[in-house]
Amino acid sequence: MTKSSQSYPMSGGDGQHSYIHHSSYQKAAIDGAEEKTRQCILENLDVLNLNPDLSTFTIADFGCSIGPNTFHVVQAIIDTVKMKYKQVKENNEVSSLMPLEFQVFFNDQSNNDFNTLFKTQPPSSEREYFLVGVPGSFYGRVLPRNSIHIGHTSYTTHWLSKIPEHVGDKKSPAWNKNNIICNNSIEEVTNAYKVQFIKDMKVFLEARAEEIVPGGLMIVLGQCLPDGIPFFKTWQGIVVDTIGDCLMDMAKSGLTTEEKIGLFNIPVYFPQFSELRREIEKNRSFTIETMENVRHPLEDIPLSHDFMISMFRAILSTIIKEHFGECVIDELFDRVASQLVKYPIDIKKCEKDMNFFILLKRK
Amino acid sequence: MTKSSQSYPMSGGDGQHSYIHHSSYQKAAIDGAEEKTRQCILENLDVLNLNPDLSTFTIADFGCSIGPNTFHVVQAIIDTVKMKYKQVKENNEVSSLMPLEFQVFFNDQSNNDFNTLFKTQPPSSEREYFLVGVPGSFYGRVLPRNSIHIGHTSYTTHWLSKIPEHVGDKKSPAWNKNNIICNNSIEEVTNAYKVQFIKDMKVFLEARAEEIVPGGLMIVLGQCLPDGIPFFKTWQGIVVDTIGDCLMDMAKSGLTTEEKIGLFNIPVYFPQFSELRREIEKNRSFTIETMENVRHPLEDIPLSHDFMISMFRAILSTIIKEHFGECVIDELFDRVASQLVKYPIDIKKCEKDMNFFILLKRK
Repeated sequence: MTKSSQSYPMSGGDGQHSYIHHSSYQKAAIDGAEEKTRQCILENLDVLNLNPDLSTFTIADFGCSIGPNTFHVVQAIIDTVKMKYKQVKENNEVSSLMPLEFQVFFNDQSNNDFNTLFKTQPPSSEREYFLVGVPGSFYGRVLPRNSIHIGHTSYTTHWLSKIPEHVGDKKSPAWNKNNIICNNSIEEVTNAYKVQFIKDMKVFLEARAEEIVPGGLMIVLGQCLPDGIPFFKTWQGIVVDTIGDCLMDMAKSGLTTEEKIGLFNIPVYFPQFSELRREIEKNRSFTIETMENVRHPLEDIPLSHDFMISMFRAILSTIIKEHFGECVIDELFDRVASQLVKYPIDIKKCEKDMNFFILLKRK
Repeated sequence: MTKSSQSYPMSGGDGQHSYIHHSSYQKAAIDGAEEKTRQCILENLDVLNLNPDLSTFTIADFGCSIGPNTFHVVQAIIDTVKMKYKQVKENNEVSSLMPLEFQVFFNDQSNNDFNTLFKTQPPSSEREYFLVGVPGSFYGRVLPRNSIHIGHTSYTTHWLSKIPEHVGDKKSPAWNKNNIICNNSIEEVTNAYKVQFIKDMKVFLEARAEEIVPGGLMIVLGQCLPDGIPFFKTWQGIVVDTIGDCLMDMAKSGLTTEEKIGLFNIPVYFPQFSELRREIEKNRSFTIETMENVRHPLEDIPLSHDFMISMFRAILSTIIKEHFGECVIDELFDRVASQLVKYPIDIKKCEKDMNFFILLKRK
């Protein structure tokens, strides 16, 4: 029922290089947005207008990966919903108003490591919700119509449903040649990525509009670029470009080939803030209640190279392995480490990316 | 939120000894009951009394394991529900009556191989339902109140939530000494297993009664014994007893110890038919619409020893590995094979077990 799409899950399991151990940057972002999330739910969740016979309140985390961030987020949402119900009940002297039970839908691609997600779920004594896993790409429907009260996604929508057309095509002006991501250095490449991003965002919002009940909320956290700032000027852009450079070096040593690199593109695109806003506004099923830049809590902390490398290794190793083979990974990230010792990243001199918080309300 | 319980999933993955490749006996049973399932749904599903605004029809398979049997069953249920809606619509000239979408909840223990389940799901083009995985023991609540229209479980309820008390206790009269399962040869052991079975069946039915909507159906397929027949006289009992004998032989060769065997008990209990009926009748939330013996399609076919051994290997290797270590498995099943060559099982001379079909309706 879900649209097929390419899929590169975060590194599964709980080993040394797993996402589970290297998602603290994402966790910090979520923590940073937590207060905002609470406040927005309290202000915007209109519990009196939801089904008065509601016995189960449903929450979905789209692109949940394997935890633990997702468990943290949903607990915060549940706490806030309960608080909101309590407030409304007190103010309106309604005695029966309270959903009895919570059910949380954890969604990610079918090849996400759900076994790890399920094994690391909070113990039943600490968990006040029924947990279910929903395999399937969120670029398409994954849940029934009008079945979710609050949807959430964080740091997921920059992953496109597939590699944009032409960026791996030698003969195209949109060929991304020696780069492995859209770093905004070639206009035709940026445009090709943008076309795919626009398509994907449309499908994402249309699917969520069907799944979320009228009056329900959709929270979208993520990363974009301030208007006019190219990705290659941010520290994240520099790290990914360094990975690309190291692959080129490895090609020179015969450990891979330039041919292979020319075909390799990470399906990640960071839109500019106004571009993102424009795409969201196109969907008429939601009102934008909040859309703002939020400070990343680690924004001004000097991140170590080890931290940066581990984070990108956890995020990118699945897709790199698939294209270049498992054997390149250790060598590649060793080279990236050496390269960053030679040419250290001075975060203060980098352009800043942007972290956004969006609250949509289903009309 | 779910009650913790011991859990020994079927062999995961899709390798040589996996459940996925050795569940054809179970599949045959399900196929055999399929016509019965269809007929019972058509007769008992009272769609006019379900919520008239119903937009999503929900189905749950409890103890689904890793497929493919579960996918086959739910498709048959969906086809029948659609047929029933069509009939009612035509007969009543109701134009709007039709649930728009189906959602299927696949439940099994948290350590079930959900990754394999999700990767082997029918392709989206052939699947007309939204699929979710529900990790947790069905001996406890796993879904919200009144959230399921049709529940199904097949060949699961003989797995107890834990090993009965005392059967591993050297000093107890209920010590199951050289046996590895309740084969009904020692009365005290049978009683200990029976006590656990009664507790578990009560919890199972109470949980389902909360999860299933009034008017909803619960289909229970499984295996039991005709009244008065001990397990050790069935071919399945003989195979398991042979596994136990071979473990004892291995203890003599120093490959394991009698001590270990004395502590080992498979938490599986096959009740007698009338005993099962009594426990179900105790639950007052359901009416028993149908409870009968169904013929197993392979009942009269001479099963090969290889077939029997592969089937029990797929079912029991997880629990045997956990107790005796991975290293015993190959040797053990080789010995079982040799033993059965020496002492072939003559199925015609064995007592027959019983396959039951139960349809419960939520009051």
